[in-house]
Amino acid sequence: MVKKSFPLSKVYSLLEPGPVVLITTAKSGKPNIMTMSWHTMMEFEPPLVGCIISNRNYSFRLLKATKECVVNIPTVKIAEKVVSCGNASGANIDKFKAFNLTPQPAAKVSVPLIKECYANLECRVVDTRMVASYCFFVLEVVKAWIDPAVKNPRTIHHLGIGNFMVAGKRIKLRSKMK
Amino acid sequence: MVKKSFPLSKVYSLLEPGPVVLITTAKSGKPNIMTMSWHTMMEFEPPLVGCIISNRNYSFRLLKATKECVVNIPTVKIAEKVVSCGNASGANIDKFKAFNLTPQPAAKVSVPLIKECYANLECRVVDTRMVASYCFFVLEVVKAWIDPAVKNPRTIHHLGIGNFMVAGKRIKLRSKMK
Repeated sequence: MVKKSFPLSKVYSLLEPGPVVLITTAKSGKPNIMTMSWHTMMEFEPPLVGCIISNRNYSFRLLKATKECVVNIPTVKIAEKVVSCGNASGANIDKFKAFNLTPQPAAKVSVPLIKECYANLECRVVDTRMVASYCFFVLEVVKAWIDPAVKNPRTIHHLGIGNFMVAGKRIKLRSKMK
Repeated sequence: MVKKSFPLSKVYSLLEPGPVVLITTAKSGKPNIMTMSWHTMMEFEPPLVGCIISNRNYSFRLLKATKECVVNIPTVKIAEKVVSCGNASGANIDKFKAFNLTPQPAAKVSVPLIKECYANLECRVVDTRMVASYCFFVLEVVKAWIDPAVKNPRTIHHLGIGNFMVAGKRIKLRSKMK
């Protein structure tokens, strides 16, 4: 399925529920993947995302050097691959090859999207003030993609030490909240 | 049900899945409640939580003045009340009274817990460096409480404009991730 451009004004609706995401980074043509759950929306438009990338991770170095990454959102269909990416370090292996994931070129950054994820957010680092104290990066989403065939994505949500909650049923309430 | 003390080292497991939370604040004995989804864990222990409290909200003023709040985690059982709290402003009404929620004294902060929430995290603001630019507060959780009767909390996760995902089934995978 070919992905479609997704409006930047709606990006919050993808991340606000709190899914586990896969962060891709790349340097000198060598890409990496990191599993991550510590992220929050910070602004609707342009969409800003705050996230913690620990300096114990190989991705920390790549992100700090290139200031670019892609936030890829997986569903339960590839949960095993998501966990495998979290258990290994990109310093030693190519995770795309090791876990049979497919890199796709991004439109605005030099970092690959992961084809097997239903949504991909191309990002640039716009604020590094809190990197030294907390490894906290502020990202701006500059381009978003979605697989239009995935209607109710069964995202996974980390509960700790290999336990995940899978997105359940949807409800609609009378809300004025955006 | 009387709540039990919950280990600070496990607080991440409550917030990392991305539930909608109710933030309580208080000033001069007048409490307020705000519905919120823009939060992230920032450190395991002591647990640090980053969150956006917009300066358009009444809670922003209270939090900035007192540097204390409680993060209360509701389940789908009180979803209507959660939405009502998000649709009203504490500048005009007492949300505890208006939505029939019960304040309970906290142990370490001068802000009430919400009895009807299955978990309550007493917090102090520890970093305000990013309040001016993003309304981003860094909170330290100083005391946590949980209702031991709630085993698989059916938390709610905001998808935008009154649409919520309810926490679904749990799965366990072989992970080395904390």
